Amino acid sequence: MIQTPAHVSTSQFLESAKSLAATAKSLHARGWMLGTSGNLSAVVHPEPLLIAMTPSGVDKGELSAEQILLVDEHAQVVFGPKAKPSDETLLHLEIVKLRQAGAVLHTHSVWNTILSDRFADQRGLIIEGYEMLKGLAGVKTHEHREWLPIVDNSQDMTALSAYIRAILTEQPHVHGILINKHGLYSWGKDPREAKRHIEILEFLLETVGRTMEIKR
Amino acid sequence: MIQTPAHVSTSQFLESAKSLAATAKSLHARGWMLGTSGNLSAVVHPEPLLIAMTPSGVDKGELSAEQILLVDEHAQVVFGPKAKPSDETLLHLEIVKLRQAGAVLHTHSVWNTILSDRFADQRGLIIEGYEMLKGLAGVKTHEHREWLPIVDNSQDMTALSAYIRAILTEQPHVHGILINKHGLYSWGKDPREAKRHIEILEFLLETVGRTMEIKR
Amino acid sequence: MIQTPAHVSTSQFLESAKSLAATAKSLHARGWMLGTSGNLSAVVHPEPLLIAMTPSGVDKGELSAEQILLVDEHAQVVFGPKAKPSDETLLHLEIVKLRQAGAVLHTHSVWNTILSDRFADQRGLIIEGYEMLKGLAGVKTHEHREWLPIVDNSQDMTALSAYIRAILTEQPHVHGILINKHGLYSWGKDPREAKRHIEILEFLLETVGRTMEIKR
Amino acid sequence: MIQTPAHVSTSQFLESAKSLAATAKSLHARGWMLGTSGNLSAVVHPEPLLIAMTPSGVDKGELSAEQILLVDEHAQVVFGPKAKPSDETLLHLEIVKLRQAGAVLHTHSVWNTILSDRFADQRGLIIEGYEMLKGLAGVKTHEHREWLPIVDNSQDMTALSAYIRAILTEQPHVHGILINKHGLYSWGKDPREAKRHIEILEFLLETVGRTMEIKR
Repeated sequence: MIQTPAHVSTSQFLESAKSLAATAKSLHARGWMLGTSGNLSAVVHPEPLLIAMTPSGVDKGELSAEQILLVDEHAQVVFGPKAKPSDETLLHLEIVKLRQAGAVLHTHSVWNTILSDRFADQRGLIIEGYEMLKGLAGVKTHEHREWLPIVDNSQDMTALSAYIRAILTEQPHVHGILINKHGLYSWGKDPREAKRHIEILEFLLETVGRTMEIKR
Repeated sequence: MIQTPAHVSTSQFLESAKSLAATAKSLHARGWMLGTSGNLSAVVHPEPLLIAMTPSGVDKGELSAEQILLVDEHAQVVFGPKAKPSDETLLHLEIVKLRQAGAVLHTHSVWNTILSDRFADQRGLIIEGYEMLKGLAGVKTHEHREWLPIVDNSQDMTALSAYIRAILTEQPHVHGILINKHGLYSWGKDPREAKRHIEILEFLLETVGRTMEIKR
Repeated sequence: MIQTPAHVSTSQFLESAKSLAATAKSLHARGWMLGTSGNLSAVVHPEPLLIAMTPSGVDKGELSAEQILLVDEHAQVVFGPKAKPSDETLLHLEIVKLRQAGAVLHTHSVWNTILSDRFADQRGLIIEGYEMLKGLAGVKTHEHREWLPIVDNSQDMTALSAYIRAILTEQPHVHGILINKHGLYSWGKDPREAKRHIEILEFLLETVGRTMEIKR
Repeated sequence: MIQTPAHVSTSQFLESAKSLAATAKSLHARGWMLGTSGNLSAVVHPEPLLIAMTPSGVDKGELSAEQILLVDEHAQVVFGPKAKPSDETLLHLEIVKLRQAGAVLHTHSVWNTILSDRFADQRGLIIEGYEMLKGLAGVKTHEHREWLPIVDNSQDMTALSAYIRAILTEQPHVHGILINKHGLYSWGKDPREAKRHIEILEFLLETVGRTMEIKR
């Protein structure tokens, strides 16, 4: 695969790939993508759908743009180095399609892991009253009440896609989804907005978690 | 707007803009300006008042000096790229006028958010006995008792300005103001002193918060 | 010792040394190798066994590839600057031999120290249900139950080697070992896998520790 | 003062100054010298005593070697830019003389502040059983019991020197001193050992503090 498909220029793809690599380095530095955890994608072409996707099993602190893959709507690699895309590519594609997202980010932070576990039996948690919520697209006031749903974890990616599809269909206003003892998915109209959403949700989860310790 | 007003040289403005961009990067790295939260200003000319102000909605870890706006006392942009100044420009102007500040910084940290919430019903918190307090302008001994007032949050910037004006008029000795579940404002005679005040108040808030956990 | 042994090229050794120095800097930055704590090794030649080993008593944030030593299976230096290899070289050699490891890393983090103490009387702790576990070699599902054994600390390196040999013989499936109030050992088939395992185990220990605070 | 005294070469002084500036940047990055807190010194000449000393009121993250002062045993500046040495120069000189130290470091961390307060009524705290203790000069086993004394804070530097002199005379084996709600002093035979001691004591204080939360 030495050429991008006709409807996508190589430079277009490389721009997305560079942006994902820079975001990966920043999120790894914060400890939100340790080991080889976490994955990132960005839409390169909407119709037919093509996304830039991180490969499976790479250290996000060392990821270079040259390692990013171009993947079609069936999760097949159409351009890039010989490598397997992340196992969770199906989840990224589901979110892109259902939310018209331009980018999807998935982090494994200590606080998102802890709270996904702590609130699992309530199927999610409410975050409300924080000014930071205004950084989420469409939220105009801190008086907003954000529901962050939690789905069960599964190694069956078709099953996990189905859970996520159900959440996004029934709860179209959410800005992120927690997977129990696994991590956080968020997205945005472009990589910049997706990164903003991840930083805000991670900040709010740490704030909620530490408030539980202080107020107890 | 391709020229700065006659009474301000472009190089004067750029120096302030560079200083704000460097401070933004440092505060973002510490996790005190995640998402697009936080904003920064510095006085470029006192009379008529002109301040360098961060634009609305930018990532503070990527902010460059070229994105900073020059804004007059009515929050109107008089020089800089086509962009909207931060929504909270009015609060910055209020603080500059009432405290003769040369710079104003506003952070959203996990600890300032938690304590603004925890002490909201007491309208503020006392921080006393710490050597670190001596880093606040005018404080000569650790035996100082610093009152850090908390105001309610509001999306009405005129209302929020009024709360802050009331605090600064009635309590002229404070070095910072918390807005409930929103963030911290501090200031100084110049950008260096404002940064020092922010670092000290953030340090003290984390110390007070963690002491509550340990001593409980 | 101005030449590497005949069966190892200098460039081969230097490649391992550079990789260890880069890993040391990264782990020191995270606060997992403060002071002169922690040590790192990588197999350079399997038979006769030669490993690249960090010297004793150096700051891991300043370690350069030129300071790394080439050490044989009896912990004798066969190439490199005039310096003593880490006191814990015997433990590295034991792990390399028993696990066919290509690299061994040893960190002293706040959380691994706390949990090694907290669970010492149970001789280890169970970590289960986390997606992050899948980053450990051979683990295919988050439903995995990882046992992380804890051994007593000792200044007698022969005794400590024996404890570790016993653990690795009786419990061949573990991915790491805690030494009580001392630190964590982990390993991998190569330096990259060893670093992945360390990041994952450190992440999980912090998660388990903070969960105890939240759920209490 | 355009020349160093006859018995000290400029290059000798600059080497110490560079080392202090690099250490300051590293400790500021860890949040242990926020605001303008903390100060650092290194012996440049033993007899007559001359030390490199950080100036008063500078941001330790921006400190350059050119800002460091050469100070004599009476705390008088004998070489360097027009600036005042740190107010706490007397304490550095006291420690240098009583412990034959080659470098002295003083940090204000969140954890050293909290524990100095928590254990103030016991005049110190015991830290024992940790492998990390072996990084302190002269400690050969983790079975060591380190006593970290706490003195009252004072703005009278002569009084504070006297407290520290009393501690160091009566308790010659300590590796550091906490000042209540103020910070930590540690030292070493050279800047490298002093930095090692600070990193180790800060690590141990955080470990002791968090263990109190977990075990409660």
